[in-house]
Amino acid sequence: MAHARAMLDNHPREFGFSAEHLAAAIEACFDCAQTCTACADACLAEDDVASMRRCITSDLNCSDVCVATGRVLSRQTDYDAAVTQRALESCIRACTDCADECEKHAQHHRHCAICAEVCRACVAACAELLGDEVEEEMRALQGG
Amino acid sequence: MAHARAMLDNHPREFGFSAEHLAAAIEACFDCAQTCTACADACLAEDDVASMRRCITSDLNCSDVCVATGRVLSRQTDYDAAVTQRALESCIRACTDCADECEKHAQHHRHCAICAEVCRACVAACAELLGDEVEEEMRALQGG
Amino acid sequence: MAHARAMLDNHPREFGFSAEHLAAAIEACFDCAQTCTACADACLAEDDVASMRRCITSDLNCSDVCVATGRVLSRQTDYDAAVTQRALESCIRACTDCADECEKHAQHHRHCAICAEVCRACVAACAELLGDEVEEEMRALQGG
Amino acid sequence: MAHARAMLDNHPREFGFSAEHLAAAIEACFDCAQTCTACADACLAEDDVASMRRCITSDLNCSDVCVATGRVLSRQTDYDAAVTQRALESCIRACTDCADECEKHAQHHRHCAICAEVCRACVAACAELLGDEVEEEMRALQGG
Repeated sequence: MAHARAMLDNHPREFGFSAEHLAAAIEACFDCAQTCTACADACLAEDDVASMRRCITSDLNCSDVCVATGRVLSRQTDYDAAVTQRALESCIRACTDCADECEKHAQHHRHCAICAEVCRACVAACAELLGDEVEEEMRALQGG
Repeated sequence: MAHARAMLDNHPREFGFSAEHLAAAIEACFDCAQTCTACADACLAEDDVASMRRCITSDLNCSDVCVATGRVLSRQTDYDAAVTQRALESCIRACTDCADECEKHAQHHRHCAICAEVCRACVAACAELLGDEVEEEMRALQGG
Repeated sequence: MAHARAMLDNHPREFGFSAEHLAAAIEACFDCAQTCTACADACLAEDDVASMRRCITSDLNCSDVCVATGRVLSRQTDYDAAVTQRALESCIRACTDCADECEKHAQHHRHCAICAEVCRACVAACAELLGDEVEEEMRALQGG
Repeated sequence: MAHARAMLDNHPREFGFSAEHLAAAIEACFDCAQTCTACADACLAEDDVASMRRCITSDLNCSDVCVATGRVLSRQTDYDAAVTQRALESCIRACTDCADECEKHAQHHRHCAICAEVCRACVAACAELLGDEVEEEMRALQGG
């Protein structure tokens, strides 16, 4: 059981947007970071490792970007909205690429099927939060 | 919901020790990495930030060591047992230090109370796995 | 002395673009990741820590994004160009924000002045590589 | 050119031990983190990838432990000496394992030869700093 929501609910500052969406994206990033590390390792142990190279690179890249994004999202003290947005966009791309690659091997390797699902869930959570961030920004620009 | 156990259950290799303990330690490390990042950020936002310096450093160190340990534990393909053991020992120390610091502020800052609990849970999960690892090593040395 | 260039020169694959620009960006990311971690720590130790909150958050975010980007750039085996581009864009934004913040304190805190310079150098190295990547992509699209 | 020493020389606190040794260890950790990431990627691209599995895992573990250790060492504000010591011990073990593995392939893969050298240099820098830390601790215990 992750604690991202509990930590947000006890943060001294108030946030401009949904703590539910924010906690969901943070937890999805950390879950995806772990799952992709495990998937890279499982791919490496497969007999057909030579055909898993692209998948392993996607896993490793996705894991690194997810750790960075999960941490950036965990910081709500005087942050820059554009840094968060670029991090979310980078994370959505890395997770989409990793899901696409893993899906190619999902029939033969169950760990790739699980990893693809976890990546898609992270894309969905980050996209929802990115929508909130952009909306909030529009409101601020419109003087509201 | 984390996926460490599902990934271990679908890894092509078999492990010398309990997948339950391994999955618990991996998930505890990633949960602790996120919680400590969030706690450092919440401490930074507090009015008494000047008295939270030691706690912030402990949080940041603990988060970095937990990410590294959670990833090392996620790799089960042809690994070195001594690397895992030193990583677990390092993680147990970083989490203990962070729990000790956070407990000093737990009365005033609820985020520190939660973080201390998460750190203690990570210590327990890593200590259990370290016990398994050492036992496994003894068995191997005894020719069993 | 960093080894990014030596490692690229001994990689089994050939790259579509300048190894010089690639090595420069990788080394800039890792240098920036370390410098920002050190700057966050130095800011935390300052007497006026309460006015350094925004700078500390920028430092920590920049360090995390730089580690992820430096690693993504270090992977040249069957990678996805769009993942690299989004990572570079995210890194350029995080470094620009951190440089902007650090420059506000550069008169009083020498560590902020150094950190701002290192961040600007990382922006320049990433922007040059991003230009190469986009050019390469255009050539590929034009069938050349 | 890395900036660890310049950042230490401009830190608001004074350190109990040699800034030269500390900066050397920090820079060695970040250099090793990058080199090991690059070596894992180069190993993955080799024709004999199936026989490089153990080396890839050692590279990835070493890179993660080096990032964590390089960051822990970069934090000099109110830190816990035991956390630093355990991190150094963990780093020395991960680097030694990685150097041992890479040396087995050094004849055929130049990237492994370079990586082994970088890992040994990191072991030496961390061991020197660990010696300083333990000496400092003894002095403190002896009331001096």
